[in-house]
Amino acid sequence: MIEESKSLDGVMAAMGEAARRGAEALRLSSAETRTAAILAMAGAVRASADAILAANAKDLAAAETNGVTGPMLERLMLNPDRIEAMAAGLEAVSQIPDPLGRVTDHWVRPNGLDFSRVRTPIGVIAIIYESRPNVTADAAALCIRSGNAAVLRGGSECLASNMAIHAAVTAGLEAAGLPAACVQTVPTTDRDAVGLILAGLKDTKGHRCLDLIIPRGGRSLVARVQADARAPVLGHLEGLCHTFVHQEADLAKARAIVVNAKLRRVSVCGSLETLLIDKVAAERLLVPIAADLLAKGCELRGDEAACALVPQMIPATLEDWTTEYLAPILSVRIVDGVAGAADHIRHYGSGHTDAIITENSAVAEAFIAEVDSAIVLVNASTQFADGGEFGFGAEIGIATDKLHARGPVGAEQLTTFKYVVRGTGQTRP
Amino acid sequence: MIEESKSLDGVMAAMGEAARRGAEALRLSSAETRTAAILAMAGAVRASADAILAANAKDLAAAETNGVTGPMLERLMLNPDRIEAMAAGLEAVSQIPDPLGRVTDHWVRPNGLDFSRVRTPIGVIAIIYESRPNVTADAAALCIRSGNAAVLRGGSECLASNMAIHAAVTAGLEAAGLPAACVQTVPTTDRDAVGLILAGLKDTKGHRCLDLIIPRGGRSLVARVQADARAPVLGHLEGLCHTFVHQEADLAKARAIVVNAKLRRVSVCGSLETLLIDKVAAERLLVPIAADLLAKGCELRGDEAACALVPQMIPATLEDWTTEYLAPILSVRIVDGVAGAADHIRHYGSGHTDAIITENSAVAEAFIAEVDSAIVLVNASTQFADGGEFGFGAEIGIATDKLHARGPVGAEQLTTFKYVVRGTGQTRP
Repeated sequence: MIEESKSLDGVMAAMGEAARRGAEALRLSSAETRTAAILAMAGAVRASADAILAANAKDLAAAETNGVTGPMLERLMLNPDRIEAMAAGLEAVSQIPDPLGRVTDHWVRPNGLDFSRVRTPIGVIAIIYESRPNVTADAAALCIRSGNAAVLRGGSECLASNMAIHAAVTAGLEAAGLPAACVQTVPTTDRDAVGLILAGLKDTKGHRCLDLIIPRGGRSLVARVQADARAPVLGHLEGLCHTFVHQEADLAKARAIVVNAKLRRVSVCGSLETLLIDKVAAERLLVPIAADLLAKGCELRGDEAACALVPQMIPATLEDWTTEYLAPILSVRIVDGVAGAADHIRHYGSGHTDAIITENSAVAEAFIAEVDSAIVLVNASTQFADGGEFGFGAEIGIATDKLHARGPVGAEQLTTFKYVVRGTGQTRP
Repeated sequence: MIEESKSLDGVMAAMGEAARRGAEALRLSSAETRTAAILAMAGAVRASADAILAANAKDLAAAETNGVTGPMLERLMLNPDRIEAMAAGLEAVSQIPDPLGRVTDHWVRPNGLDFSRVRTPIGVIAIIYESRPNVTADAAALCIRSGNAAVLRGGSECLASNMAIHAAVTAGLEAAGLPAACVQTVPTTDRDAVGLILAGLKDTKGHRCLDLIIPRGGRSLVARVQADARAPVLGHLEGLCHTFVHQEADLAKARAIVVNAKLRRVSVCGSLETLLIDKVAAERLLVPIAADLLAKGCELRGDEAACALVPQMIPATLEDWTTEYLAPILSVRIVDGVAGAADHIRHYGSGHTDAIITENSAVAEAFIAEVDSAIVLVNASTQFADGGEFGFGAEIGIATDKLHARGPVGAEQLTTFKYVVRGTGQTRP
């Protein structure tokens, strides 16, 4: 969709420069303007439902011709319900409290200088995602809520859908008086565009225009972005989540939580992958939990001690402890108390989300202290690892980085801050 | 100082693995233990003053033989006063409130889940610095206060001094029952060691051991680290600080602040490099300020309008707006109000520290909103851009990144956080 006379480099450099201007406009815009823009986007998405569906039909036809099937085709597909959900999602983000300008810390020094730390946008954020057209609307809304300009690069298979959704986003921005450059989408499937984004999206003078890159997709996408990017990256490779059932667990809670953590949705990053059972109560705890899981069609792969207790269990290999199944399969290991559970998690975990089930609060605190993951849960399902469940309203992913944002990344986590220091003529001795 | 039989790769991999163990010990240590370790380091530095001075004498002799002179030799040199200052600095860091375990946010969701965000260490931090032996002690103390293991790599010219100071640091750690691996120093001047650190300090299995790299030094060091590092970097390239004197400035304050901001210490990153004067009051404001600066030996380089008002001023070139002089030289430009000042800063600034001098608080707020720098000052000297002046106790630098830490990086900024979620059996619908 790029005119032949224009080079990709030139198009991308122009996008970078426009994004900088968009970021500047957003940084100086009011919360009301940003709210109005997101609401207008929702209206425009509803109003252009026919155009979006027509574009999506083209994408679907091309994908089927290219042999795309199964979950990937399913994620690509839009219908009137999904378009309504997209519009409702935009309205939900419009209601998230605006994070900008909030004073997050304030103090006065003995010399009278008055210090404030104030939330500000990060600037220009590029989001690289797979073929899920709804991300186009979600990402645009979260960036506008947080005052950041967005450069979106979705999967090749949904380019037509993304362009149609982007047209509605642009209409929303313009209705609120914001420049269209606040949210841009890369208008080509040329894979070199991703390389230019990873290089930081240079302007015509060679200056980097991106402040942050967010990969949203599978492990291979995130790994490529983390390896090649020349701008900061916020992403997570995988959610290898554990639940440790302690000897003082309430068995009824444990059964309900483990089944929910594994099976509510097996394809989300917060789904349980390894169950750790306390050695001193292994039989009492594991036998009924395993029965519940097996009855619901979950495959179990255990260590020797677990297999001895549950005949239907398949022997686990080393690879099972490091595999994010994203499927109705669960690995099971018998461990010696909190120390044994923490050792296993330290060795095999991905620092995403880990849980303990126990009625002993001192044991729970010991687990919280031992386990260095972004989210540590007590007596609850790992499927709560989700920005919506945290009360963040919406999220663009779960960060397992240790800098800036860790855990769910919502509008607030897409901001930074500046220090404002108010004086009365102070000079430094 | 590495045995011939050991390869650098092997030595560095072993350091990485030891650092991971040190980080684990620190993460689980108490605030009291970390305080005791830092105090014991201070005692050990005082007790080994003779050994440190002897090692420093060797470094100085070698440096002079190699033709090192001037400020670089001066920074390398230790004496009894500087050793006492180093010990006192350690004691000061021991008194900084321990940041770990602090609950920085807390909320309860309608389903009863109880969310806390709790401060935790980042992990293993490598600090690469130039030939200033005091950084060895400072960096060790800030890392221990924040619960992080440190891998230190100082300039080649001060290796002997660093090893002697590091021996005192190790003695302090061991006196408090912490492993020596909590703070390690690279025991060689081999420049390949820096390459291995920038690659993330891989263990023998090829896993990255570093969570963060902090370059502390000149622009070329920071630029190399930012270009080559495969682990997150916290650094700043330069402090190109501006002060805008608005037409409603109090002239007496403006004169005192500008002279202090430029000349208190010209070599620090918070020193003033460009003075912006409001057009409508240019003559009244600039003439006395320029006279003060010229009387103190400061060279002035101005745009045409400024040169017309101050005959001693040298015409500025484009390069002057982008130069961090770190010398008694100041560039001066006449601009049209807050909008003109903000435009200049947006174009030429480095996002570090910028100030306005005005008695009009609405104008001050407009400047604060317009200028997107880590630190924005009103009616005070840019030389307040310093962790100590912020009340952070000590700092390892000023970050101009927009993620994680921005502005002075003290003990608290060397931490991350985890979310702790306490439930009573909640499963996700």
